Amino acid sequence: MAATRHRPLAVPAVRLRGGALGRWQRLNAEATIPHCIAQVESSGVLDNFRRIVGESDAAHRGFVFADSDLYKTIEAIAWETARSGERRHEAWLDDVIALVARVQEPDGYVHTWIQGVHPDKRFAEQEWTHEMYVAGHLIQAAVALARASGRTDLLDIARRFADLLDDLFGPGRQDAICGHPEIETALVELARFTGEERYLALAAKMIDLRGRGVLPAGAFGPQYFQDHVPVREATTAIGHAVRQLYLNAGVTDLLLEADAPGLRAAMDAQWASVHERKMYLTGAFGARHRDEAFGDDYELPSERAYAETCATVADIHWTWRMLLADGAAGPARYAETIEREVHNALAAAVDASGTRFFYANPLQQRPDRHSEENAPRQRTSWYSCACCPPNVARTVAQLGAYVASATDGALWIHQLADAEIDLPAPLGSGTVRVCTEYPVDGRVDIEVAGDVAAGAVLRVRVPSWSSASSLEAADGAHPREADGYATVPLAPGAHYRLELDLTPRFTRAHHRVDALRGALAVERGPLVYCVEQADLPSTLAVDDLVLLPADPVSGEDGTLRLRCAEAAEPDDLYRSGQPVAARGEHEVTAIPFATWGNRAPGAMRVWLPTP
Amino acid sequence: MAATRHRPLAVPAVRLRGGALGRWQRLNAEATIPHCIAQVESSGVLDNFRRIVGESDAAHRGFVFADSDLYKTIEAIAWETARSGERRHEAWLDDVIALVARVQEPDGYVHTWIQGVHPDKRFAEQEWTHEMYVAGHLIQAAVALARASGRTDLLDIARRFADLLDDLFGPGRQDAICGHPEIETALVELARFTGEERYLALAAKMIDLRGRGVLPAGAFGPQYFQDHVPVREATTAIGHAVRQLYLNAGVTDLLLEADAPGLRAAMDAQWASVHERKMYLTGAFGARHRDEAFGDDYELPSERAYAETCATVADIHWTWRMLLADGAAGPARYAETIEREVHNALAAAVDASGTRFFYANPLQQRPDRHSEENAPRQRTSWYSCACCPPNVARTVAQLGAYVASATDGALWIHQLADAEIDLPAPLGSGTVRVCTEYPVDGRVDIEVAGDVAAGAVLRVRVPSWSSASSLEAADGAHPREADGYATVPLAPGAHYRLELDLTPRFTRAHHRVDALRGALAVERGPLVYCVEQADLPSTLAVDDLVLLPADPVSGEDGTLRLRCAEAAEPDDLYRSGQPVAARGEHEVTAIPFATWGNRAPGAMRVWLPTP
Repeated sequence: MAATRHRPLAVPAVRLRGGALGRWQRLNAEATIPHCIAQVESSGVLDNFRRIVGESDAAHRGFVFADSDLYKTIEAIAWETARSGERRHEAWLDDVIALVARVQEPDGYVHTWIQGVHPDKRFAEQEWTHEMYVAGHLIQAAVALARASGRTDLLDIARRFADLLDDLFGPGRQDAICGHPEIETALVELARFTGEERYLALAAKMIDLRGRGVLPAGAFGPQYFQDHVPVREATTAIGHAVRQLYLNAGVTDLLLEADAPGLRAAMDAQWASVHERKMYLTGAFGARHRDEAFGDDYELPSERAYAETCATVADIHWTWRMLLADGAAGPARYAETIEREVHNALAAAVDASGTRFFYANPLQQRPDRHSEENAPRQRTSWYSCACCPPNVARTVAQLGAYVASATDGALWIHQLADAEIDLPAPLGSGTVRVCTEYPVDGRVDIEVAGDVAAGAVLRVRVPSWSSASSLEAADGAHPREADGYATVPLAPGAHYRLELDLTPRFTRAHHRVDALRGALAVERGPLVYCVEQADLPSTLAVDDLVLLPADPVSGEDGTLRLRCAEAAEPDDLYRSGQPVAARGEHEVTAIPFATWGNRAPGAMRVWLPTP
Repeated sequence: MAATRHRPLAVPAVRLRGGALGRWQRLNAEATIPHCIAQVESSGVLDNFRRIVGESDAAHRGFVFADSDLYKTIEAIAWETARSGERRHEAWLDDVIALVARVQEPDGYVHTWIQGVHPDKRFAEQEWTHEMYVAGHLIQAAVALARASGRTDLLDIARRFADLLDDLFGPGRQDAICGHPEIETALVELARFTGEERYLALAAKMIDLRGRGVLPAGAFGPQYFQDHVPVREATTAIGHAVRQLYLNAGVTDLLLEADAPGLRAAMDAQWASVHERKMYLTGAFGARHRDEAFGDDYELPSERAYAETCATVADIHWTWRMLLADGAAGPARYAETIEREVHNALAAAVDASGTRFFYANPLQQRPDRHSEENAPRQRTSWYSCACCPPNVARTVAQLGAYVASATDGALWIHQLADAEIDLPAPLGSGTVRVCTEYPVDGRVDIEVAGDVAAGAVLRVRVPSWSSASSLEAADGAHPREADGYATVPLAPGAHYRLELDLTPRFTRAHHRVDALRGALAVERGPLVYCVEQADLPSTLAVDDLVLLPADPVSGEDGTLRLRCAEAAEPDDLYRSGQPVAARGEHEVTAIPFATWGNRAPGAMRVWLPTP
């Protein structure tokens, strides 16, 4: 492993007290998690378990992978417990874990669709049955619960299932992989927590088997589930975006734990493919509805962005692991990517009440758009494929995990969040307190208190877009260094201040992005902005706005004011001749993309045409 | 019906002798039709019939609608026979028609998937079984054959099936519609040929039933097959493009034959929706792969254009019927649309050998694109869903039908094709000869010979893009009139000449078309041009071209020369700051879109960025 190997902090060591992320975590605890608990009951997920053991007469409901909704909800509760120390849902956990235990077969197998609908298909059609995918979410929930509160009943269940997988598919035994990656990252985490090398070896085998034609190809071809080329040769992200990104998280997890030649270069190439040629400005992924897939390089249509919420969640998982693995892009790039994702695509996936969700997160809504099953015009409370809502819940509950890391002699602050951070043992027993209303406000105050190891330093990421880039201290300014971080002594009683430049800025896309040619986006700090019809007079259509070359003005409420004209062309779809000048001048409100769609449904766009 | 009601000419009355369309018809006769005959054998379509009557042991192959490949091939042969008078495939027709007769059940039903795979589903799941769709193609082939050569064996089969449909689903009986429209236009044609009003009434009932929830909605919603709103209220084209356009052809057919209040306004609105907001420059339709659907208004991405060949075929059918029905857009608009479709999207669907086909016709090919099942990077000889190749064959065989029409006292020439046109009886017994190499050359010579009714006139469409717009005659110039046609006496011995201005021109798209902002296309006459990597040095990527403001120069070989620079930006996907000027200057060859993809696979684009 590399010399600068970053270590994550324990979940309770980072407490998001206030600020944007802390408030979101409280909403998550008070609204989103209870909502998920109610929905796994009302959508039939729990009945799917009960019917296996004769406790319900209901028919199986939902997709083959519906069990994972329960496991992700449990995982969210676990991280929320780890964060807050509160055990609000203990009785519910007792009930549902006991239910899962009753449903588990003696050999460790548990998957309600196979057990209750098609027992004949057990491990027979893994290209679509999601059995190991579901096992992966069971394992992640179980480890999270054990880490969070020490309870091991779910872990016992998960280990029995993992042991069955190892017995069947481990090294030297039958070859199998799952159509939807997820088991790989879960097995590495299980190996970490239990110290059991077998799980690591099983994950490694599955990663080695991928791209060797183990799965029969379906209608979308083998690249749909990344089985078209071995992982070490797959330098381009392709196919179903969530599957590619979960796979990459698992591969990078393996890298972190075991020597695996060839995987590091593949992951660096994958990360560049995804983030330099296939990422939406909002930190979202997947340009195609058809197969929920990445587009080709630079294929990034705004209105047809699939941009699945789960793909952003998956990329946060993976990108954090790339940071820990000392990937080639460097920690500042990884941290800034996570920041972009959390504050834009992930934040937009849930409404202000915490109980309504987007599955797809397009960057443009045309006024006449018809709703589609997974891409409704407004957030809904649940989906027939409900992967996204509990994925948001478990991610928000563990946002603290992405705030800081430790290397030998240094605490690194990657996310500028209002937080209290306990130093990990080698650095002392003291605390670093970060006070900020970032990203709405640019001031970040950092104080060090308590006992600190001699010579330890604090490294604070200073965002690349800020012209003001020094940490101010009593002894002077500590500038952002080449790697994107400023370095200051980790000294008890020290106080540092960062005053970021949040002047709104225009952003343009690479010339090969056809969908964004001749248009600019507006960003302020890490926030991407958009214009919504609800802020315009009905006589002025969002799709006719033309951005005039005037600096955006910040409003008091986090909004911006833009100067726009109105396109006034003939109606012809195609015509010869010169462009017609836009007319008029309007002051137009732009709002953070994260907050769009909380009013009446209507047109919205992130990218605005220039004259 | 309106006073200016256009009447089509009999198929043998218009003979495309030479020129682009005439040569294409010969290629169609010599290569495409024999290829289709070979493919319906090798792909299993004929075996699907044989197995029903114990003449084959093969399993059923292909989709539920595979029978239609046979019927469309028969229809192509019929129109080819009508055109050329040659009966090349009579023995094959004898065989396959006798086979269909043996397979037909005593009550008239014939559909090999239902009969041979799922007899229990007969008319039970019409949202996807395509039973009436297949019946529609059977009827169209049968009527074409009867019109072309007088043989009525297939017509007898088709009528028995149509009578069964009428018995089951006619007025006062069970309500049913097909998930894929097609039966409607076929029934109207059957009524025309047989004089049997029942078929018209059945078509009318099905059109009235559409949009009333007769079909259960599938994964793509009721708009997928235009069952979301009644036809008279459906002013926006939506859902599966081929289905919408076949439906519209049927509705307009009904309009032509029977008084049907409300349908005319709906069709005028539909035609505007399709052609003013949802048509690709090449005359192609369908922006989305996912459900083969129209996009929203102005959603016209080049690289993700589905642009199914069959949708262009369907629109040619419908638009011609709108011309005959005296639709609101006027004959010149309809004729120019058909011209755009025939010379661009339809022509590009087949290769120079006449035996390889595109199913999807995107306007841009990115260099790294992965092939998809229905959108390979190169034309292929057949498809698992083989609707397009025989659809091309039957359309090309009847191109003569779109060249001219008659109104009281006038012969109208809509397409400037090298042709010999027999006057329909009321206008005399003479002939109009059109000599031209259009669209490669702009000269069109027209001569009138033989007997002509007194006072009859000739109306010749003069394309809207031509600045030279008069028909020259011995007695002076006859200018293009407000409706887009020039009027001259239909006088024996008269000679008229049109010299069109084929100066290449730049075309821009409406400002709401995000995918085409900041880009221009190049057109010359009715031809859309594109740039292909095969014409560029390997160091200059198609996707980095920037069009400089210089007039394109026509080459001798139908190609154009453009002046382009090369975009030279940083690699960042997103960045602040000013655009970087393009560098260098290159002379770049553009070729007609119809001819792309006949060399090595590589990048291609129609729309070129401007600086």
